[in-house]
Amino acid sequence: MSKDKYTIGVDYGTESGRAVLVHVSTGEEVATAVHPYGDGVIDEHLPGSDEPLPPDFALQNPQDYIEVLRETVPAVLREGNVAPEDIIGISTDFTACTMLPIGKEGTPLCMKPEWRDNPYAWVKIWKHHAAQPEANRLNEIARQRGETWLDLYGGKISSEWLFPKIWETLNKAPEVYEAADRYIEAADWIVLQLTGEEKRNSCTAGYKAIWNKQRGYPSDDFFAALSPRLRHVVDEKLSRDICPLGQRAGGLTPEMAELTGLKPGIAVPVGNVDAHVAVPASTVVEPGRLVAIMGTSTCIMVLGEEERIVEGMCGVVEDGIIPGLFGYEAGQSCVGDHFAWFVETCVPPAYHEEARQRGVNAHQLLEQKAAQQKPGEHGLVALDWWNGNRSILVDVDLTGLLLGATLTTKPEDIYRALIEATAYGARVIIEGFDDNGVAVNEIVACGGLPGRNKLLMQIYADVSGREIKVAGTDQAGAFGSAMFAAVAAGKETGGYDTIFDAAKHMARLQNVVYKPVPAHKSVYDQLFAEYLTLHDTFGRGANDVMKRLKALKQRVLAGS
Amino acid sequence: MSKDKYTIGVDYGTESGRAVLVHVSTGEEVATAVHPYGDGVIDEHLPGSDEPLPPDFALQNPQDYIEVLRETVPAVLREGNVAPEDIIGISTDFTACTMLPIGKEGTPLCMKPEWRDNPYAWVKIWKHHAAQPEANRLNEIARQRGETWLDLYGGKISSEWLFPKIWETLNKAPEVYEAADRYIEAADWIVLQLTGEEKRNSCTAGYKAIWNKQRGYPSDDFFAALSPRLRHVVDEKLSRDICPLGQRAGGLTPEMAELTGLKPGIAVPVGNVDAHVAVPASTVVEPGRLVAIMGTSTCIMVLGEEERIVEGMCGVVEDGIIPGLFGYEAGQSCVGDHFAWFVETCVPPAYHEEARQRGVNAHQLLEQKAAQQKPGEHGLVALDWWNGNRSILVDVDLTGLLLGATLTTKPEDIYRALIEATAYGARVIIEGFDDNGVAVNEIVACGGLPGRNKLLMQIYADVSGREIKVAGTDQAGAFGSAMFAAVAAGKETGGYDTIFDAAKHMARLQNVVYKPVPAHKSVYDQLFAEYLTLHDTFGRGANDVMKRLKALKQRVLAGS
Repeated sequence: MSKDKYTIGVDYGTESGRAVLVHVSTGEEVATAVHPYGDGVIDEHLPGSDEPLPPDFALQNPQDYIEVLRETVPAVLREGNVAPEDIIGISTDFTACTMLPIGKEGTPLCMKPEWRDNPYAWVKIWKHHAAQPEANRLNEIARQRGETWLDLYGGKISSEWLFPKIWETLNKAPEVYEAADRYIEAADWIVLQLTGEEKRNSCTAGYKAIWNKQRGYPSDDFFAALSPRLRHVVDEKLSRDICPLGQRAGGLTPEMAELTGLKPGIAVPVGNVDAHVAVPASTVVEPGRLVAIMGTSTCIMVLGEEERIVEGMCGVVEDGIIPGLFGYEAGQSCVGDHFAWFVETCVPPAYHEEARQRGVNAHQLLEQKAAQQKPGEHGLVALDWWNGNRSILVDVDLTGLLLGATLTTKPEDIYRALIEATAYGARVIIEGFDDNGVAVNEIVACGGLPGRNKLLMQIYADVSGREIKVAGTDQAGAFGSAMFAAVAAGKETGGYDTIFDAAKHMARLQNVVYKPVPAHKSVYDQLFAEYLTLHDTFGRGANDVMKRLKALKQRVLAGS
Repeated sequence: MSKDKYTIGVDYGTESGRAVLVHVSTGEEVATAVHPYGDGVIDEHLPGSDEPLPPDFALQNPQDYIEVLRETVPAVLREGNVAPEDIIGISTDFTACTMLPIGKEGTPLCMKPEWRDNPYAWVKIWKHHAAQPEANRLNEIARQRGETWLDLYGGKISSEWLFPKIWETLNKAPEVYEAADRYIEAADWIVLQLTGEEKRNSCTAGYKAIWNKQRGYPSDDFFAALSPRLRHVVDEKLSRDICPLGQRAGGLTPEMAELTGLKPGIAVPVGNVDAHVAVPASTVVEPGRLVAIMGTSTCIMVLGEEERIVEGMCGVVEDGIIPGLFGYEAGQSCVGDHFAWFVETCVPPAYHEEARQRGVNAHQLLEQKAAQQKPGEHGLVALDWWNGNRSILVDVDLTGLLLGATLTTKPEDIYRALIEATAYGARVIIEGFDDNGVAVNEIVACGGLPGRNKLLMQIYADVSGREIKVAGTDQAGAFGSAMFAAVAAGKETGGYDTIFDAAKHMARLQNVVYKPVPAHKSVYDQLFAEYLTLHDTFGRGANDVMKRLKALKQRVLAGS
């Protein structure tokens, strides 16, 4: 056995797939390759068709997932100058719930000529939102029946998740539902392609398909209450055989070895989800340290040793992130998107000109200007609900609020207030965990934002009163997958026996630590109290003006 | 007597003076001339000095007022090609409270060499805000003593008004207070210059000096409670002889005839205030028709036959606008300023570029885009408090609020929401009058905004549910003064005997009428209900977050 062994992690995102080649004993990222999906996100019409898709559709072509392997794996081998025999495993993570109907042999229905023209035969990706009516009805029925699992998902099942999407097909295209031998997460389908084995992972099952390690799926009676034809949906269309993360699903097939240039038989673990796999990639494999994956939106993950009910979480799943622990997920639906909206919509020409002269972009200019202020100086407070509130209110109909503006308010004031608002939103989530027995002592940030905005990181530390560290990798999804590949390979082939060992040796943090400044914290405590009052006034029913405005807007646009 | 007689109205604004030459029998505006004040608004240091003025100072040089006469009156005579013998009167209106200390003979103290270097010897103009501590104390004492006149001024005397400004000088420069033979409004001082007669007008006395036609000034005991040295301030420094508007103060002196090129002896009425004189200029000389003078801020005037207490009005004064009627004044402190702030601070380069391509300015582009929307379509509601709330809450510490924003909110959405917010603010004032027995059946708009923004006018009609007409003149101040000059001249010299007659013959409306659209009104009723709830939540103590943010800002900036 040679000293230097490597694994490959492949991260399937919304627009493209990314492979990273990692040195197993040091965690060094040796090479990276990205391949955009040929058909991208299909939301206007199917490839080769002029027929418009229904509203809120977001599909993908599963062939694109195969092309990612064909392109990126050979590319990282070349770029890293690593021999295939030194690669001991390959692993994947995916957006979720991204799901598809397949035939008995695993072929996606949409790849069969007879189903190719039916949009319901294609992959519905996470942001396919056409199943909202089904989600609403499902939640109503679950509440009426007093289903106890509802509290494990913040009281609401999202239209993005598996059963609303399946039910939507049953309602709109029952012939597709009938023709589907099974429904499967793309995360598990790609593993089936790589290994020939259908092994379903505990992460997507738990977070997206209401599966629980102790109690299994919701009862057949519940599904029958949705529709008699769904009574046996689990046994007819899914599988009750769920594997913990890191478990070896199988060995790479000769066909896939041929396609990728890797050796057949190397370890492939069960699938995983992009956000969840970022947790061990950020060094976190134990309770008490929260991971914030900060990009256009923010995913918040924390581990616990018990199952607790936390208001507004997206889900708590045993084995959902790290085997043997309960993985808690929460989220903020508008973070980077918020600042992007502001810069695009509300920043005047003089600022863009000044940015050009200073050789920075508009975000950097605003950050520089805002960084010169003390907390509380701009006199503003905002509610960060430009895209609704995911946690803890779980309410897409909430909207943004900015309070305190005067004729001397400047763009950097509002920019800073929006950053602070997202930090207050994060603090609400963090304190929700802490207050319910899920400790949060430290925060580790990863994703695109932490490296781009130091002011934001300091504000999060000041507002939350907690130290913030930053993950060493800036591609935490693919890197985390490479770690799980090393676990599936096992110590005897040069990998690790557990994700704990892999985290210890492969994952690392940057040297920077953002520490709360006590004087800032004290001002932010006052501002956070104001935020909380507004949060509860507008978010918990005292004044439902936001919902009424949205409803009025819809009535006006409908001409009624 | 020749058939064609003329009068001249001179309007003293904040930055310049403006004369208009008007044909008496038809109201035709024959010529206009503007002259900027040489020393402008003096807020950094006195002319010829490097010594910085204290904060919140805003002074003027009274010599500049004389120069306006010297420049503009001959200019309108020339431009109008009118002979001096056809001018039967000249009248003035002024910003207020704009006040100065004078010697026995009427000379401003600041024009005497021994007082020239003392800022307190100069004219303090309306927006001199350094007397806020005195205003606060005055209000406190008035409330403690249960002074009944306080309710005639919305419960609060402004720091801009006469007694706080006098008291400030007594506190900060008692030697100036002692040296002043009298304090006088610039509105009355300019009349003293024109006629040699000191005749004080009922408008500034009533609105700015707490004078009441029936009850006179506050008691000596009240003034003594402020300071023993103020016990006899009225008798020592002012005058109890107050004249109704339109009354002839005297004839033009030979010196002033020489300076202006007019004939000596022509009629000069008592002084007036720029906003109040705009009421008859807008054809309004009777109850039931409200005048809105809409510019950077909005002054709202309405006439009544009785003295009523209306929440948050700036004042109610018998003879204050039209002799024989009670003049009610209210105001919105941020209207045109609001839109200017938005365009300067929050409109991105692409919009400015599109405006350039369409050959319009940014305001016009935003108006065009916003005009394509239906009411309620943008999903926003705002509180128009970017510069505090004058009426009806009388609270400078309130700040702006924008609610309902999403990631699809566009600049024109916010622009329209801000226009609507000022319209809701106006409706609160209008309904305050109506609910308290001061009828408002119709609105007449004048000032700079009505001619510039048709969408705004339609929104005001839709929100208020009242027809809006627009004054024929776009220089309502100077025009109204020319009307009062005709009244002072009297019918026998070719003028009119009353302001009612003058209004009938000289003032006119434009042909346009903005009528409420019932379908719009119905949506705006719903939105106005939302506005009112927010108005009361944040403006009446349920959640004083705006004040707390302002106080925090001040503490942070003070480093404490």
